[in-house]
Amino acid sequence: MKNVLILNGPNLNMLGSRETDIYGNLGLDDINTMLAEYASKHGIKCDFFQSNIEGEIIDKIHSSNHNAIIINAGALTHYSIALRDAIAAVKIPAIEVHLSNILAREEFRAQSVISPVCKGIISGFGKHSYILALEYIVRGEL
Amino acid sequence: MKNVLILNGPNLNMLGSRETDIYGNLGLDDINTMLAEYASKHGIKCDFFQSNIEGEIIDKIHSSNHNAIIINAGALTHYSIALRDAIAAVKIPAIEVHLSNILAREEFRAQSVISPVCKGIISGFGKHSYILALEYIVRGEL
Amino acid sequence: MKNVLILNGPNLNMLGSRETDIYGNLGLDDINTMLAEYASKHGIKCDFFQSNIEGEIIDKIHSSNHNAIIINAGALTHYSIALRDAIAAVKIPAIEVHLSNILAREEFRAQSVISPVCKGIISGFGKHSYILALEYIVRGEL
Amino acid sequence: MKNVLILNGPNLNMLGSRETDIYGNLGLDDINTMLAEYASKHGIKCDFFQSNIEGEIIDKIHSSNHNAIIINAGALTHYSIALRDAIAAVKIPAIEVHLSNILAREEFRAQSVISPVCKGIISGFGKHSYILALEYIVRGEL
Amino acid sequence: MKNVLILNGPNLNMLGSRETDIYGNLGLDDINTMLAEYASKHGIKCDFFQSNIEGEIIDKIHSSNHNAIIINAGALTHYSIALRDAIAAVKIPAIEVHLSNILAREEFRAQSVISPVCKGIISGFGKHSYILALEYIVRGEL
Amino acid sequence: MKNVLILNGPNLNMLGSRETDIYGNLGLDDINTMLAEYASKHGIKCDFFQSNIEGEIIDKIHSSNHNAIIINAGALTHYSIALRDAIAAVKIPAIEVHLSNILAREEFRAQSVISPVCKGIISGFGKHSYILALEYIVRGEL
Amino acid sequence: MKNVLILNGPNLNMLGSRETDIYGNLGLDDINTMLAEYASKHGIKCDFFQSNIEGEIIDKIHSSNHNAIIINAGALTHYSIALRDAIAAVKIPAIEVHLSNILAREEFRAQSVISPVCKGIISGFGKHSYILALEYIVRGEL
Amino acid sequence: MKNVLILNGPNLNMLGSRETDIYGNLGLDDINTMLAEYASKHGIKCDFFQSNIEGEIIDKIHSSNHNAIIINAGALTHYSIALRDAIAAVKIPAIEVHLSNILAREEFRAQSVISPVCKGIISGFGKHSYILALEYIVRGEL
Amino acid sequence: MKNVLILNGPNLNMLGSRETDIYGNLGLDDINTMLAEYASKHGIKCDFFQSNIEGEIIDKIHSSNHNAIIINAGALTHYSIALRDAIAAVKIPAIEVHLSNILAREEFRAQSVISPVCKGIISGFGKHSYILALEYIVRGEL
Amino acid sequence: MKNVLILNGPNLNMLGSRETDIYGNLGLDDINTMLAEYASKHGIKCDFFQSNIEGEIIDKIHSSNHNAIIINAGALTHYSIALRDAIAAVKIPAIEVHLSNILAREEFRAQSVISPVCKGIISGFGKHSYILALEYIVRGEL
Amino acid sequence: MKNVLILNGPNLNMLGSRETDIYGNLGLDDINTMLAEYASKHGIKCDFFQSNIEGEIIDKIHSSNHNAIIINAGALTHYSIALRDAIAAVKIPAIEVHLSNILAREEFRAQSVISPVCKGIISGFGKHSYILALEYIVRGEL
Amino acid sequence: MKNVLILNGPNLNMLGSRETDIYGNLGLDDINTMLAEYASKHGIKCDFFQSNIEGEIIDKIHSSNHNAIIINAGALTHYSIALRDAIAAVKIPAIEVHLSNILAREEFRAQSVISPVCKGIISGFGKHSYILALEYIVRGEL
Repeated sequence: MKNVLILNGPNLNMLGSRETDIYGNLGLDDINTMLAEYASKHGIKCDFFQSNIEGEIIDKIHSSNHNAIIINAGALTHYSIALRDAIAAVKIPAIEVHLSNILAREEFRAQSVISPVCKGIISGFGKHSYILALEYIVRGEL
Repeated sequence: MKNVLILNGPNLNMLGSRETDIYGNLGLDDINTMLAEYASKHGIKCDFFQSNIEGEIIDKIHSSNHNAIIINAGALTHYSIALRDAIAAVKIPAIEVHLSNILAREEFRAQSVISPVCKGIISGFGKHSYILALEYIVRGEL
Repeated sequence: MKNVLILNGPNLNMLGSRETDIYGNLGLDDINTMLAEYASKHGIKCDFFQSNIEGEIIDKIHSSNHNAIIINAGALTHYSIALRDAIAAVKIPAIEVHLSNILAREEFRAQSVISPVCKGIISGFGKHSYILALEYIVRGEL
Repeated sequence: MKNVLILNGPNLNMLGSRETDIYGNLGLDDINTMLAEYASKHGIKCDFFQSNIEGEIIDKIHSSNHNAIIINAGALTHYSIALRDAIAAVKIPAIEVHLSNILAREEFRAQSVISPVCKGIISGFGKHSYILALEYIVRGEL
Repeated sequence: MKNVLILNGPNLNMLGSRETDIYGNLGLDDINTMLAEYASKHGIKCDFFQSNIEGEIIDKIHSSNHNAIIINAGALTHYSIALRDAIAAVKIPAIEVHLSNILAREEFRAQSVISPVCKGIISGFGKHSYILALEYIVRGEL
Repeated sequence: MKNVLILNGPNLNMLGSRETDIYGNLGLDDINTMLAEYASKHGIKCDFFQSNIEGEIIDKIHSSNHNAIIINAGALTHYSIALRDAIAAVKIPAIEVHLSNILAREEFRAQSVISPVCKGIISGFGKHSYILALEYIVRGEL
Repeated sequence: MKNVLILNGPNLNMLGSRETDIYGNLGLDDINTMLAEYASKHGIKCDFFQSNIEGEIIDKIHSSNHNAIIINAGALTHYSIALRDAIAAVKIPAIEVHLSNILAREEFRAQSVISPVCKGIISGFGKHSYILALEYIVRGEL
Repeated sequence: MKNVLILNGPNLNMLGSRETDIYGNLGLDDINTMLAEYASKHGIKCDFFQSNIEGEIIDKIHSSNHNAIIINAGALTHYSIALRDAIAAVKIPAIEVHLSNILAREEFRAQSVISPVCKGIISGFGKHSYILALEYIVRGEL
Repeated sequence: MKNVLILNGPNLNMLGSRETDIYGNLGLDDINTMLAEYASKHGIKCDFFQSNIEGEIIDKIHSSNHNAIIINAGALTHYSIALRDAIAAVKIPAIEVHLSNILAREEFRAQSVISPVCKGIISGFGKHSYILALEYIVRGEL
Repeated sequence: MKNVLILNGPNLNMLGSRETDIYGNLGLDDINTMLAEYASKHGIKCDFFQSNIEGEIIDKIHSSNHNAIIINAGALTHYSIALRDAIAAVKIPAIEVHLSNILAREEFRAQSVISPVCKGIISGFGKHSYILALEYIVRGEL
Repeated sequence: MKNVLILNGPNLNMLGSRETDIYGNLGLDDINTMLAEYASKHGIKCDFFQSNIEGEIIDKIHSSNHNAIIINAGALTHYSIALRDAIAAVKIPAIEVHLSNILAREEFRAQSVISPVCKGIISGFGKHSYILALEYIVRGEL
Repeated sequence: MKNVLILNGPNLNMLGSRETDIYGNLGLDDINTMLAEYASKHGIKCDFFQSNIEGEIIDKIHSSNHNAIIINAGALTHYSIALRDAIAAVKIPAIEVHLSNILAREEFRAQSVISPVCKGIISGFGKHSYILALEYIVRGEL
């Protein structure tokens, strides 16, 4: 049975309460429940982890023995080279997701330091960004 | 019945023959057939258009009356402000897709001038980049 | 009898339907009619051409035997060095016009690669940008 | 009866004596006389002011109760954020004019810090830059 | 009764022992005591938190139900977009303070990524930077 | 008895009439009155000076024999190296203040050429920016 | 028998009439005739194509089954990433030529986006740039 | 008896399992054992600490009372100004080491924000980078 | 009889009182007296003008009928394009002088916007910078 | 009888032994012999000079009385402004050649400081780069 | 028996007399003697070469048949691409050393053009920089 | 008796024959003779040295025991950090001179890497640049 690690970085625990006009009012738990259900229907097990601490996300990646990682690194996307190195180190394929379209916001958000070590990016589709990433795995690609 | 316009820009007609180690050996027709089938299963009609001429793609966008556009603008992604303005002009929601992960290649490919007028970006999943975009529409989001 | 070539680049065929809050709801035909009338009153003949294809505009410039060119190059303004070279090649005096004030919008629109080969620029006055350009010619300056 | 303030910045008092190969040999007074006549024919009153001192031009703008301002800020165009703020503060519509085409000269002249707070720009038509601006007002647009 | 959260980022626990020629020899506790007294005199309650871990400061901001935040983010000021997003997420007004004048030191310190989401900045007044921020709140502005 | 010079640069004479949504509707005189009262309560005398002319502000700084200067240089903040040199020359401690948060607006406003020669900066608190600066002096620090 | 495709981009159809002081007064047909003769003497067949439309040049490259391509991309040299991708896609060796020395003119002409996918560059020798490229092929290197 | 703190930043716990072609297959424990032995032979005591959390490394530096620090900050090298300030604060001499030559890899790795507060840098010698740093201390220089 | 205009810009009236460790303790009057004497010995008449107002210096240049100008523009050197245009307009040869070596101080002082319109620059020799400039004129070169 | 100076800069003496996968295994002497033969067949005399010392190449250029220079400046191409000035000084037409395509390698190699003073550039054709340059001279162009 | 070439670039012959506060007062001969002794104890032979002429150092590298090179290129470190190519050409492993920490001085010294072709860098340890490099070779790594 | 070293860098031996419209037709020997005469009249001895080899100029500086150096470094001015370090090393005061005004030519000539270690710069006065430098020494300043 395939298993997938769903990682969420800084401030994503605030989903639902945070700027709801931009990010929608679903909480992170709601999204995770939705993902777990979708995954289990296709015989995939999801593990979830969120932290506001860069190093804890790195620790989680190091200890991962999953078939794939789906990661929304939040603001760390733009400067955490340590996170990039962690993904590169474990050699587990990772998919980068974002709720909003990071290429359509402030200029500093258009740069992702983790993209070069990720399989691909899905950005701008709200909760569906996660689901589409999962769908890719369901399709047997990772 | 919903309809979707699948647009492909310069050099994508060469898919299958072109650098197959990077882009896979599926031809564009193969991908389009696959998309048409997937779409029709969900009651969606797909129209297809490919051109190597920037202005013809713009013409196609202008004359579109589709519910959504899925666009792989190829190299035009990086400099065609005219294409960007065309997408902005018609106000049909557009999804930007790429076969390879443009954020993980040469520095000049990490910039997309059309992203700011697109709903979102799906980049790096080969043919699946198109399918995931379609899946988003199937889910009723556009 | 003096004759003038009025050139319009990508997306300007969409005038009137396109973002009308910014560009007004006059169509390009309305503007052209207005220009033709104004010109004929002053003994000037106008020819009109619009294309979304860079190369067709270049072809038109090459085949021009007009006394002057009034050109709204649309988004090509910002990157079409080929267009710039075409204007420089024919040595017909050209006036650069824009509906909106390109120096007051996104940073990338503040750069015009064709300005250095044009007589001058009139930008930000809607349809009047064209008329003022024509007025300059009426005054016998070109 | 509409009134318009014609503002000229540093060194424009030297018109006619200064680099006449570039700027023509009309003096500023000649241009102003011409503008006054043209305006009065169309029922518009012009006030004129020139200064080499940035702050005096700002003072003039502050005390203005005109319907519109036509301003050739000279070299202040390229660095006087104070002038920009003055125009923004009074909320009188302003038209930026230049004798030569500032987008076709040294690179530092291609940047205008006042453009973003002006209605539009007319640059490169010698004395006619002023007249075309006035013509725009005559047409009832400001 | 109004309450205020006083946040201090990396290395500020070293105040008093650290480069005392620049930062003075008051410890962080001394400053906090002083702030608590000043606040209580004006009927305001202060909570204090210092951490060298970016994520812990973010956690603290998320769980805050204070009327205002006074934050000296230390070096995180210059790169922690995650911290910026946290402040933006909770929508509690925040005042940015610094002991030294960050605009008068090394070039990289002149950039604050959190300023755009803060009410204002007070920088360069030693311990008084905190007090002046508190004084602003005392005055009933936040 | 301590005395303080309150300097205001270009366009600040327009306070109250100018973009009141951003700057509030207090006039500069209102602010000055408020400052004079606050100062006199604490045994400090304030002198006030505003000019739209860079050189007049420099003259005022040269002739100053005050214990401290509070300066809102307006737009000169961003380019007047001459003003910077004037402050450095007289060696009277100066506090830089701004009504709005200059680090949270257009990118060009985030640079202050006078900060490196000022004691500190207080920016974003409306009229209170001045008062907090005065409060710092009241506390005997300058 | 070896065959070579000679490609010419925008404005090169104007050769002979265009700025003859820079480009000489030979027309493109004259150059092509000369090339055909030189080639046939060495048992090589030349095909010729010129277009002002980027996409048509790309189409030509796609359909090419030549042993080598000699390309003067004109102004497209400086921005057409689509052209670059077309050359890379077909894997036919290409030689970049220019009439004038592009490294000795305006700064923006010193950048070639197609060089990285070409065998080499010959620039600055007028019509001889083409001939030297042909000579390289005659020598049996491509 | 002299004592030295050996600090390792993010991802260095993965040594031996991580990209072994670049970093060799020694684990961090192996390296530490080797360092401890080498040190003890020369009458020096080593303490070891590794963390993936920036703030924990800062805490460790704050609480250090060692004669010297040898630090491989991993990816934090390139952006952690907080780490830089921590080293500067404690005034214990620090030697920066890296396994690979950071000046010979991606451009962003060629910048070290901690170098300016370190005694020196030893980069590119694998495990020997640590030993050479220790050797410098053995020689009585720190 | 030759005459020379000695111009001094912002803050140079403070010479002698200002940072005397850098600029020496001669006042501007002392320097001017010295220059007048030196000039008169060689049959040259000097006129002197200092102002802190950019526009007044421009006015002075406009009204000049001297054989040469020696100008220390102070901080205006680095941004006053208006001053540059004034010098270019009058076509009187100008020599740029500075007390300190502007190429050896802060980076922003290494740029002179007036140099391109001046005969030459003499910078770093204190009062002697003026004298050497005068000496050049004495030698009959201007 | 025409004579040509063939100049080779730093490291080109290592040809044949150096990175032969990139530069081929012909030595510089082999190339020179080949060039001498080719030249003599066409009645041209070649002189050869190679040095690793910038100044010796400059000396050689100064003392040259040849009809043309063919120069492969090696790495000096990218920074030796002195070499550029030497070529400009002697006014002998020079052709810049390179074995590899300098526009297709590291970014710093894409800049040639000598190109602006050379007739043209031939880069990327191995030994043939020299021969094609010679062929240009044979054709009577220099 | 292993042999090592110790190379020193421009100005290093001045060691001991030159800015001794920064570089210590050991002369280069003293350092070389020390290195020779240290090496001979470990059965290694050192050859020494210093030159102020870039090309002579390149010549020395070309003629080297040593097992390793230790090079302090002095200021050439920052711009001599010719030196970089020489090191790359001979394929002898090289260690870059510097007396002071080049990453902690002026910004232009933080760039080394030779680092990418060197095994590693040791910078900031005075004479010990050389010894540590030698120690690395003693350990049998090169 | 004071002695002065007059140093001239690359290409200055070509003076008189080289671009005489820019540099005048005096040879370097003529200038040197003139300088020697002028100096000896004031009891100063001049030594002269010119080389096209950077390292030879550095050698000359190292061996200098003069009271002052007057240096025209030619093109080395713009990139020879080695030359800069040589001047800094010997601590003999140096005056930088140039025949033409380096701040008024190509952008790359406006940067001098040796200025920060020179007393001052005299640029743009032809042969008089040297004489004015000598005059400064005659006046007893160095």
